[in-house]
Amino acid sequence: MHILITGAAGMIGRKLTARLVEAGHLNGRPIEALTLIDIDSPEKPKTFTGTLVTAAADIGDPAAAPALIAGKPDVVFHLAAIVSGEAELDFEKGDRINLDGSRALLEAIRQAGDDYRPRLVFTSSIAVFGAPFPEVIGDDFHLTPLTSYGTQKAIVELLLADYTRRGFVDGIGIRLPTISVRPGRPNKAASGFFSAIIREPLAGEEAALPVGEDVMHWHASPRSAVGFLIHAAGLPSERLGPRVNLTMPGVACTVAEQITALRRIGGEKVAARIRRAPDPLVARIVAGWPRRFDPRRALALGFAAESSFDDIIRVHIEDELGGRIGA
Amino acid sequence: MHILITGAAGMIGRKLTARLVEAGHLNGRPIEALTLIDIDSPEKPKTFTGTLVTAAADIGDPAAAPALIAGKPDVVFHLAAIVSGEAELDFEKGDRINLDGSRALLEAIRQAGDDYRPRLVFTSSIAVFGAPFPEVIGDDFHLTPLTSYGTQKAIVELLLADYTRRGFVDGIGIRLPTISVRPGRPNKAASGFFSAIIREPLAGEEAALPVGEDVMHWHASPRSAVGFLIHAAGLPSERLGPRVNLTMPGVACTVAEQITALRRIGGEKVAARIRRAPDPLVARIVAGWPRRFDPRRALALGFAAESSFDDIIRVHIEDELGGRIGA
Repeated sequence: MHILITGAAGMIGRKLTARLVEAGHLNGRPIEALTLIDIDSPEKPKTFTGTLVTAAADIGDPAAAPALIAGKPDVVFHLAAIVSGEAELDFEKGDRINLDGSRALLEAIRQAGDDYRPRLVFTSSIAVFGAPFPEVIGDDFHLTPLTSYGTQKAIVELLLADYTRRGFVDGIGIRLPTISVRPGRPNKAASGFFSAIIREPLAGEEAALPVGEDVMHWHASPRSAVGFLIHAAGLPSERLGPRVNLTMPGVACTVAEQITALRRIGGEKVAARIRRAPDPLVARIVAGWPRRFDPRRALALGFAAESSFDDIIRVHIEDELGGRIGA
Repeated sequence: MHILITGAAGMIGRKLTARLVEAGHLNGRPIEALTLIDIDSPEKPKTFTGTLVTAAADIGDPAAAPALIAGKPDVVFHLAAIVSGEAELDFEKGDRINLDGSRALLEAIRQAGDDYRPRLVFTSSIAVFGAPFPEVIGDDFHLTPLTSYGTQKAIVELLLADYTRRGFVDGIGIRLPTISVRPGRPNKAASGFFSAIIREPLAGEEAALPVGEDVMHWHASPRSAVGFLIHAAGLPSERLGPRVNLTMPGVACTVAEQITALRRIGGEKVAARIRRAPDPLVARIVAGWPRRFDPRRALALGFAAESSFDDIIRVHIEDELGGRIGA
């Protein structure tokens, strides 16, 4: 089993790599080779004993995809992307990486020949959806993205389905919820506060809440995101059918419910570290985001996320804080 | 007012050209210049007195779009496309013309500069939808095309919406129903029989019916298609909003209802010219096609089609047969 991960240096990419290396197998087969690429070369996982390649590669470079596919990996996790905010600020860069880069990967696989049909797991996003929304978004709701990032993801979903239908690749696209609690330092993403209001208080620091507590959003933990990817890699295409792009399960909860969960787990002192700092711009952006899904197909196909925001916080404490809450 | 029409030599393109030349104006402004292009140079409309350019151009050629946009047309009707059957047989050609050609047109407009923001009317298709369907397809049903043609159209819809949202173009995409009754000789399209079973009997000839009479489909006349295009050209973007792609109205009717309408208008002798010739392949293809829509947004925005298949037949008799039914 040879696995290629694009975007392997990102938060999800690193966690996926660690999980695969720890397991040593995927889809019941031993992992003999691992190719990890990102715009800067990913770190080498220390305990992997198979053939390991880590390299810097820009998937927006037309020469990149054919070189990556030349090794004919059995499973490709295509995580590489320019994030939402940057794709909105730099239209050409977003199109070059998120759209042309993904298309080049599909084309390289197609042109590798008839006998080569790897499982390609593509990380899409709930950013493919755009307001106005129904109260609950079903599996057959249309994609009307309100960002260039969401547009690029939606286009790659369409290409993935067509390339799969034609037998060029064995694709599956998974629309990730907002990943909470993101580890690391706060970033400038408009969605950053959903994680920051949990992460910083648990670490003994203050966090600003820019929106009202009635704001509802759709969350899953980093651990669940890695679980989705691994489950997607092994899902038989007969079970998947022609609609290869799936909204992943998650937890719909309001900011108030996030704070209540934090108080339950961390106590009043921790929850008190959230400081109200209304930001009309962030509030306006977030108002256009989806809130609650009914991801029946993904659930029926065995994808599983947390069942409450309490669970999401516990995963963060276990995976990032060594089980301990900061002072 | 300078108008550019791509695909101007096609059936809809010729009828649109004729209607525009006859009217002499669009959106209340006189038509001073008309640029008509197609893969083979379109015929020159004889009665047009403004600046006329007719030219052969392959929009899949990267040099084509910038040259067409250099003249800064006020309205672009982008009809050029490889049809469904050919795009399925020749994947690379379909992608080159339907996807890359359309994208090149959008890019040429974007790169023409900030002050240039033409209305671009893009003809999409109900082929963006793929089975399984609900009984009636609403405006928020997802696009899961089952052909490469439908995939390419759906991708251009997404690009059109994003380019419009970003202010690069003033786009509108209209999803045409199956156009019935298509004039001219029978073609090999799987949908050809929907027109042939009306057109040939009215012209005194036999026509084969390859599917059962319970097959339902979504129709509009060529005259309505031209009406959609002209209405789309004049629709204010404030009224359209960010969801710029619209399913056009049409008539949902079964083959049995088509035949009943033909009998009502042409008499028993005409209807008797339909010969049952079941074709399992055609029946299987047609089973994956959408049947009935609820195009509320388009209707609310003033798009109008026929209200019965009888009307569709009458349009054919008026526009193609000079008002007379063949012997």
